[in-house]
Amino acid sequence: MIDQLINKIKATQNPTVVGLDPTYAMIPTFIKEEMLETYGKTPKAVAEMFLQFNKAIIDEVHDLIPSVKPQIAMYEQYGLEGLRAYIETIAYAKAKGLVVIGDVKRGDIASTAAAYAGHIAGVEIEGVHMDLWQEDAVTLNPYMGFDGIEPFIKACNDYHRGLFILVKTSNPSGKELQDLLVDGVPLYDKTADLVSEWGELAMGTMGYSEIGAVVGATYKEQGIELRKRMPHTFFLVPGYGAQGGKAEDLKDYFDKDGNGIIVNSSRGIIAAYQKDKEVTEKEFAIAAKKAVLAMRDDLQGVMR
Amino acid sequence: MIDQLINKIKATQNPTVVGLDPTYAMIPTFIKEEMLETYGKTPKAVAEMFLQFNKAIIDEVHDLIPSVKPQIAMYEQYGLEGLRAYIETIAYAKAKGLVVIGDVKRGDIASTAAAYAGHIAGVEIEGVHMDLWQEDAVTLNPYMGFDGIEPFIKACNDYHRGLFILVKTSNPSGKELQDLLVDGVPLYDKTADLVSEWGELAMGTMGYSEIGAVVGATYKEQGIELRKRMPHTFFLVPGYGAQGGKAEDLKDYFDKDGNGIIVNSSRGIIAAYQKDKEVTEKEFAIAAKKAVLAMRDDLQGVMR
Repeated sequence: MIDQLINKIKATQNPTVVGLDPTYAMIPTFIKEEMLETYGKTPKAVAEMFLQFNKAIIDEVHDLIPSVKPQIAMYEQYGLEGLRAYIETIAYAKAKGLVVIGDVKRGDIASTAAAYAGHIAGVEIEGVHMDLWQEDAVTLNPYMGFDGIEPFIKACNDYHRGLFILVKTSNPSGKELQDLLVDGVPLYDKTADLVSEWGELAMGTMGYSEIGAVVGATYKEQGIELRKRMPHTFFLVPGYGAQGGKAEDLKDYFDKDGNGIIVNSSRGIIAAYQKDKEVTEKEFAIAAKKAVLAMRDDLQGVMR
Repeated sequence: MIDQLINKIKATQNPTVVGLDPTYAMIPTFIKEEMLETYGKTPKAVAEMFLQFNKAIIDEVHDLIPSVKPQIAMYEQYGLEGLRAYIETIAYAKAKGLVVIGDVKRGDIASTAAAYAGHIAGVEIEGVHMDLWQEDAVTLNPYMGFDGIEPFIKACNDYHRGLFILVKTSNPSGKELQDLLVDGVPLYDKTADLVSEWGELAMGTMGYSEIGAVVGATYKEQGIELRKRMPHTFFLVPGYGAQGGKAEDLKDYFDKDGNGIIVNSSRGIIAAYQKDKEVTEKEFAIAAKKAVLAMRDDLQGVMR
């Protein structure tokens, strides 16, 4: 995953990952009406709304970005139909050459983690291997320690897939646990050290590990300190745009080659049409493309 | 959830929750053969195996236990078909009067947490409310702090549902983060304090909150200390049996009325037939019932 991601960032000159996190409120009226008419007030209708919405955006932006990150919760709330839309979105994005990061934030003990690792490793039934989820990488939660991560590392090495483990999240309450001081340093530094250590077990060929870290854009000083602390760990950076993070804040999240991070924006891109006075609702994907280009230019200004 | 759970524990005189965590290796050969013949080497075949297996066990033990806890990872690895089996297992268990704890360990920031809260709150589509997952309670991960928990608390109050938040897990690596010292106390104590505080926002009527804690059976001293630290927090206790926890260790996890915890066993019950020389493979559910009765007697010995 990580080599492919770095190469795609270089090719597009754009470290943007588009968060495919649709909500019902975000769906343009003409799509809503069509699906409600066809499928009624059902989870299937919403699933089809999300799919049509995502596909139109992917069609418009796929050659401008390296990666998309669907947030599984948005789909999971609509049950099996919602999750079908999640899987079909992944398949569609992969067919367009995008690196797909499944934002699943799973985390459990050894035997259970081995089952969750099916997200990136697939599953075997009587000797037949099948890749039912197809993510290139997934996000994970570190609270349960190494035995909850280990089965995923095997999958990284066996299938060239990747992980992004929560270290310092972008939300306001993240600090309640993550910023507690342990031996004079915040807990997220301890998490960072574990993630770095685990990362050595699955190095890519371009200086970064298959095991990355989630480091929010909204805590600039901490992010810069973590960049120094974890030189071989690629960062997935949420919190840009709608949550308040700015490109200027991210200048020192990049390494000296302008590499090392991928920056997520969700609402700011996929719902851009709701704030863009130059487009009609039917042009929602065009608005997303404009937002991607603006974000690319914004980030290029600080990539050095 | 919590009042219903306490009443069911009193009625059955049994604080056992059966972990419905089937694995392929656990399925009796006669079920495997039937499903492979009918559905081929497909996720649907495995889903049907899990369903038949779970239903037979539920039929046999439902009047002896208060609750079951399906681990979603075991189903999720088999994709949408697997998750269908998860949902149908929940529906079946609820129809038999059991309290269902979905072991999902989700955790994310505010807006995403609101989507995950659909597990216990259901979802609304154009004014039509539907409960697609149906869990009475779910497990959650606290790493992202309160804004990741808050949307679930609303669901607890609106729909009388519950949560069990990871505090001190039963696995060996849990200590890597959870036992780090913060102000001279382990991190899990800080988590415990947060969970207690959050718990006040959704109290049941019998002295315990809808917001419980996951506290492993495998760290006895810590569990006993946490019992004192969190007097109004119900404990979901994993780690009994296969992971090494014993009833004797749990004596002081109970409150003075012999209440306050529910103890999980998964493999030790549902795969009991593989170690029970008195039963045939076809009697796997009978073996599960025997294991439930043995566990009940074991726990009653320390419930004071």
